[in-house]
Amino acid sequence: MKVLIILGHPDPQSFNHALAAGVREALLADGHDVSLRDLAAEGFDPRLSAAELSGRGAVPEDVRPYVDELGAAQGIVIVHPNWWGQPPAILKGWIDRVLRAGVAYRFEEGDSGGGVPVGLLKAGAAVVLNTSNTQQARELEAFGDPLEALWHRCIFELCGVRVFHRRMFGVIVTSTLQQRLSWIEEAQALCRRVFAP
Amino acid sequence: MKVLIILGHPDPQSFNHALAAGVREALLADGHDVSLRDLAAEGFDPRLSAAELSGRGAVPEDVRPYVDELGAAQGIVIVHPNWWGQPPAILKGWIDRVLRAGVAYRFEEGDSGGGVPVGLLKAGAAVVLNTSNTQQARELEAFGDPLEALWHRCIFELCGVRVFHRRMFGVIVTSTLQQRLSWIEEAQALCRRVFAP
Repeated sequence: MKVLIILGHPDPQSFNHALAAGVREALLADGHDVSLRDLAAEGFDPRLSAAELSGRGAVPEDVRPYVDELGAAQGIVIVHPNWWGQPPAILKGWIDRVLRAGVAYRFEEGDSGGGVPVGLLKAGAAVVLNTSNTQQARELEAFGDPLEALWHRCIFELCGVRVFHRRMFGVIVTSTLQQRLSWIEEAQALCRRVFAP
Repeated sequence: MKVLIILGHPDPQSFNHALAAGVREALLADGHDVSLRDLAAEGFDPRLSAAELSGRGAVPEDVRPYVDELGAAQGIVIVHPNWWGQPPAILKGWIDRVLRAGVAYRFEEGDSGGGVPVGLLKAGAAVVLNTSNTQQARELEAFGDPLEALWHRCIFELCGVRVFHRRMFGVIVTSTLQQRLSWIEEAQALCRRVFAP
């Protein structure tokens, strides 16, 4: 299975990088065709320009490989820290620029853009792996865990991805090495199960 | 009153720009000291680097003016379109890079970063003006309107801003000029009321 891993953390030494690398390794071992995109390392520009927003003209060269890869993916894994209940800006830019009309969704004919879009992604399943420094009880009570709605309802459900799993690991900043290793194993097991043939 | 307006839309011809300009004009007419930051026009870089994330070293030169202005603001207005239940990446980057520890919030002494932060913003009130191409009923039912939790609970409440108002205008793409003009008047009236002496 073609699995696309999108990583949205700027620090190569981060636990997010260890998580993404661990998942990649486990999926490769299962024989999957895995592509890992480290957005910060690749210098991805998250800014959607006015010209690009207008939808006129070709897909810009710098996003074309990301768009093609997303369109071909049969499985998607997203890895990022919880920053203000949202992904880091660089990953939000991947959403803004890569989840394009015609690739991720389309409007019915005659719809001027105010209607209900139809999902177009080929991927049958998505896994979102988040890290957080907020206690889980506080995340739910104080903030309502917005990342669940953002990824599940606003993005993957809208784009037609039927199977969705998400796991928020934390608290990272006070965790032990042993705990982090067990979280990586948990993420690997989850992804192997979701993307099993 | 020092009021800071942050605008997160790339197109100078957008309704978001008209909204921000209208609010600026109304607040200036009331004698406020208003600063309007058009992030896309100013070429704001939304990418938080690993070095900047580490918290070591000085505040980077390119964000210093934004940080100083936020710290001095007595009122804040945010204007942006609803893109995937979130702000555009450029505005998410303003959140990531400008709402810094020591300016927007701090941790209690002895807290390693996993505790509950204390809000530091001086601003007493914030207004968020959003635009959307999703019907309001569908926004609530299908998506749960994540922007409300993001701005109110995850950001302004956490940073100590006590008064919060938000208005989502839409559907934009099918609206008439008359409707848009009345929305600008509504936004102006809201901001004049919230920031009245």
